[in-house]
Amino acid sequence: MTAARGERVRIVEVGPRDGLQNESRPVPTDRKIAFIRALAAAGLREIEAASFVHPKAVPQLADAADVLRGLDDLPEVRISALVPNERGLDRALAAGVRRIAVFTAASETFVQRNIGMSIEASLQTFRAVLRRAVDAGVTARGYVSTAFVCPYEGEVAPADVALVTERLLELGCDEVAISDTIGVAAPTDVTRVCAPLLRTIAPGRIALHLHDTCGTALANVVRGLDLGIRTFDASAGGLGGCPFAPGAAGNLATEDLVYLLDRMGFDHGVRLAAVLEAAALIADVLDRAPTSRQWRRLRGPGCGAA
Amino acid sequence: MTAARGERVRIVEVGPRDGLQNESRPVPTDRKIAFIRALAAAGLREIEAASFVHPKAVPQLADAADVLRGLDDLPEVRISALVPNERGLDRALAAGVRRIAVFTAASETFVQRNIGMSIEASLQTFRAVLRRAVDAGVTARGYVSTAFVCPYEGEVAPADVALVTERLLELGCDEVAISDTIGVAAPTDVTRVCAPLLRTIAPGRIALHLHDTCGTALANVVRGLDLGIRTFDASAGGLGGCPFAPGAAGNLATEDLVYLLDRMGFDHGVRLAAVLEAAALIADVLDRAPTSRQWRRLRGPGCGAA
Repeated sequence: MTAARGERVRIVEVGPRDGLQNESRPVPTDRKIAFIRALAAAGLREIEAASFVHPKAVPQLADAADVLRGLDDLPEVRISALVPNERGLDRALAAGVRRIAVFTAASETFVQRNIGMSIEASLQTFRAVLRRAVDAGVTARGYVSTAFVCPYEGEVAPADVALVTERLLELGCDEVAISDTIGVAAPTDVTRVCAPLLRTIAPGRIALHLHDTCGTALANVVRGLDLGIRTFDASAGGLGGCPFAPGAAGNLATEDLVYLLDRMGFDHGVRLAAVLEAAALIADVLDRAPTSRQWRRLRGPGCGAA
Repeated sequence: MTAARGERVRIVEVGPRDGLQNESRPVPTDRKIAFIRALAAAGLREIEAASFVHPKAVPQLADAADVLRGLDDLPEVRISALVPNERGLDRALAAGVRRIAVFTAASETFVQRNIGMSIEASLQTFRAVLRRAVDAGVTARGYVSTAFVCPYEGEVAPADVALVTERLLELGCDEVAISDTIGVAAPTDVTRVCAPLLRTIAPGRIALHLHDTCGTALANVVRGLDLGIRTFDASAGGLGGCPFAPGAAGNLATEDLVYLLDRMGFDHGVRLAAVLEAAALIADVLDRAPTSRQWRRLRGPGCGAA
């Protein structure tokens, strides 16, 4: 059960998109760009930077094209953007996006309330989006939200997660992020849902996207590592939450994930202190301290003495 | 690696002692008693309630005998008290204590700074304490502090932990709490230190005592469960810290541990909502919100809507 030292883990930074989309306070475009550039400077090589949802639906992310323009000179970083439909893809392609993400869920009620359609309708939408993306040489990841527990339907059946995951891969996604949207899963849930998936899907095509409402996210990462998963989403400063998921806290904080992986001896290329610098930049704009343990430990009140 | 549903786990509540000993604000005796009674009402059956260290060393706990007197009518709860030496044992026995705890560490520098003697000297002290305790029909647990990482010496050798643990068991302790005093261990540390221990010591004699500075405590609990450990210390509201360990945060919060164990299907007899009630009592006295995830989730700002 102990992971091998020196093995490579990918961290996918989702703070600029999954984190900021839930902020009521508007973040100026140049501050978003500075945040993302700081994340890149910390060693993050995959950053979900924007969302091409309808500007009226998520006004905080209406400046997606401008954000991407400000990141043009970072060829070493794989920048991605969420795309909900063909109209969003048009905007994303016009902005020069090289990687997109599509978002659905494993529970009908959640998808209905979140994006206003059925799971099947969302997959039909993505069929056209992903075909055009692939034709344009654009790669794609998929999100399966509420993969463990749905705030409306309760515990989600692993077979439902497997079905949606396989469909997303068939449609052209190269990886699928299995998401604990409301942050309530325990390692037993990770095993229950992911072990069946990994019987037919290579672990390299599965990511874990964990929120940290119950403080179980790191325990779930470790169970994912035990199962062979090597890709984890995280959000600098623990940004995030979900307006469609009552009580949900932010994403697993990137700096907390980095601490764990460092201590366990995994290789990931991200520097903890520099992630805290990036978190400080966005905390300043939001006028709110990051929620992470590493922030409290290294930058919180009383720190600096020893 | 998935634990069996319905298996029994013991939670040892240490908030009234390990938590309160680090509080600068004095807590009135009747409020301590009310806190401990609320913990008992939540289903906790093992509570470290007091410390018979010299009243001048830890004035917050100088009322130990009065606290224990206020818990006389709780026969179903195993109340324990920390005892540093024979003088403390005299006071503990006079107060009618039925279970004591003794405290040393696996790193010399830490023991020296914390209790002002060497590890060997602490064990010699406990030899007399534990002989007299056993003669009086009093049971004992031991703490091995800094069992993973020492704030002064860095990573601690598993052999050093094993040596001290075995000595404490030989001297009469019926269990030893392997302690991540500064809350920096990862599951790989738990395996590194505990797997060798468990080759010669029954898992029923090993407890994990985890602080949550880095948010890794629940991940470490899960690794402990994987290794067969079934006893975990925790502190309602995440009380605690360590004045001898710079930057250390509180103990793993009892309510966060309860959430994890509930979700994983373990049987422990503790009700989460009632632990939050107890945490609320002591938070009121300390004028500081609990640090736990479950507090933020269920009682924090913005809660109550849905």
